[in-house]
Amino acid sequence: MSTKPVRLTRKDFSLFIPMTTRLRDNDSYGHMNNAVYNEYFDTAVNQTLIERGVLDMHGGDIIGLVVHTGTSYFKAVGFPDRVIVGIRVGRLGRTSVRYELALFREDDDDAAAQCDFTHAYVDRSSNTPRALPASLRQALAPLLPGTAA
Amino acid sequence: MSTKPVRLTRKDFSLFIPMTTRLRDNDSYGHMNNAVYNEYFDTAVNQTLIERGVLDMHGGDIIGLVVHTGTSYFKAVGFPDRVIVGIRVGRLGRTSVRYELALFREDDDDAAAQCDFTHAYVDRSSNTPRALPASLRQALAPLLPGTAA
Amino acid sequence: MSTKPVRLTRKDFSLFIPMTTRLRDNDSYGHMNNAVYNEYFDTAVNQTLIERGVLDMHGGDIIGLVVHTGTSYFKAVGFPDRVIVGIRVGRLGRTSVRYELALFREDDDDAAAQCDFTHAYVDRSSNTPRALPASLRQALAPLLPGTAA
Amino acid sequence: MSTKPVRLTRKDFSLFIPMTTRLRDNDSYGHMNNAVYNEYFDTAVNQTLIERGVLDMHGGDIIGLVVHTGTSYFKAVGFPDRVIVGIRVGRLGRTSVRYELALFREDDDDAAAQCDFTHAYVDRSSNTPRALPASLRQALAPLLPGTAA
Repeated sequence: MSTKPVRLTRKDFSLFIPMTTRLRDNDSYGHMNNAVYNEYFDTAVNQTLIERGVLDMHGGDIIGLVVHTGTSYFKAVGFPDRVIVGIRVGRLGRTSVRYELALFREDDDDAAAQCDFTHAYVDRSSNTPRALPASLRQALAPLLPGTAA
Repeated sequence: MSTKPVRLTRKDFSLFIPMTTRLRDNDSYGHMNNAVYNEYFDTAVNQTLIERGVLDMHGGDIIGLVVHTGTSYFKAVGFPDRVIVGIRVGRLGRTSVRYELALFREDDDDAAAQCDFTHAYVDRSSNTPRALPASLRQALAPLLPGTAA
Repeated sequence: MSTKPVRLTRKDFSLFIPMTTRLRDNDSYGHMNNAVYNEYFDTAVNQTLIERGVLDMHGGDIIGLVVHTGTSYFKAVGFPDRVIVGIRVGRLGRTSVRYELALFREDDDDAAAQCDFTHAYVDRSSNTPRALPASLRQALAPLLPGTAA
Repeated sequence: MSTKPVRLTRKDFSLFIPMTTRLRDNDSYGHMNNAVYNEYFDTAVNQTLIERGVLDMHGGDIIGLVVHTGTSYFKAVGFPDRVIVGIRVGRLGRTSVRYELALFREDDDDAAAQCDFTHAYVDRSSNTPRALPASLRQALAPLLPGTAA
């Protein structure tokens, strides 16, 4: 975790999700609090899954648990800025998915912050690892870099 | 506070602000937590003031303090719903402004929730009541009902 | 909603719940954002119900829906202040409960903010009003003012 | 970021900060949302700095910017659980501090989640890196592992 991450830019992404900032996102320093960025990244992952028809928030035998999030902060952003989140899949493992996300401020090309976000899939009742369902793998494959989304 | 409020509809508003929902808005019941609605209403008020050029979040001698919010909840809403907030001015007092806001879910005509939100203006250093600045009064007058915005 | 509420004091309550503030509670103005207070009040209501054994967050045929919250703000508070929330029952209706809550800052006797918070009980599946269960009524009766808690 | 972190336990810490959970911490899955854990960790860092007299949230020429947070999640936790956060300093650099934090559920010995959290110190106006003030270094040195706190 000590190596400095390479800062992502818009051209690293083919899928973008615009989100609106809120007054409450800003903390005493007048900028988005560090914990809040993860609300944007978490939302982007789940919205992508819902829109691609592979997340049923209220059911499903196999569920994705968030096991790791790593967030790097490069530039201050906050309400009332316009922001947009880019999302791609960094790795489709056998039982896990690592997403790579970046939040862009206004028309910036460089990420204000970026996140690696890992879901591990488990059986809802037994909590034991499960292979990614084929439908999930199919829905996410186009978000691997170098793939035409 | 015991009388049931009249449920507002889209035609009660001329100004609307779209906002995006977040996974974290939902609580254990799978719907937006009651406290979260006020983040939308608070954002709508401040965004309106910023866009009309009458709020400088980092300066200003006269500031608006939130003294009351009253929120009524009619219908469940939550991530990943699309929502939009309507805002109007219910009363432009000498030292205070009461906003009336409603949050609409998807294409609903009736409010999912609505809020009366009162700002009292005070001197930042002495905290004593101050008359609304003329520029603020001018910026908000078009949002009084019966006014062409 | 126009009448100024009477500011509550510690002696209006017999049940208090200490809560810890968070950096993220504060907004750009350096104080707790207005929407955040309702997280404290909402938590106090639900914690009281859980501790008295009358709320099963994951089940139950009859559930309490928040239909109204009215919050008045008297004094700035925020991280890293110590705070405590007082809770009492203002009214035990046939199908609804109105709680009255106040948040106190440090050793203050007067409320920094206070809230009336109304739960309407409904059948979870049909959403139609239901009489308060006897166990709930019994658990809350001691929190009516003038009752020895 | 691919190596699995070693799960921390209570005996890895000498300083603990109890915090209270909120209903709103839980998301639709009935457990604390991943983004919320960082509110606890962020609060623990800032509260420690404030209590040791080396953070003035409203002033100061040299400020600590959060440049990275890496959070690993091991076990579900959420309202109404009692939780406590352990904090230590992993590294006192020339211009940065890396904290290591863990959140413990109820009486668990093993972390429910843990976080590495890095502050980089900069000049508030020019945003250029600055050496840690001697007072900060002195306040944090006892939190390095192997030091008697």
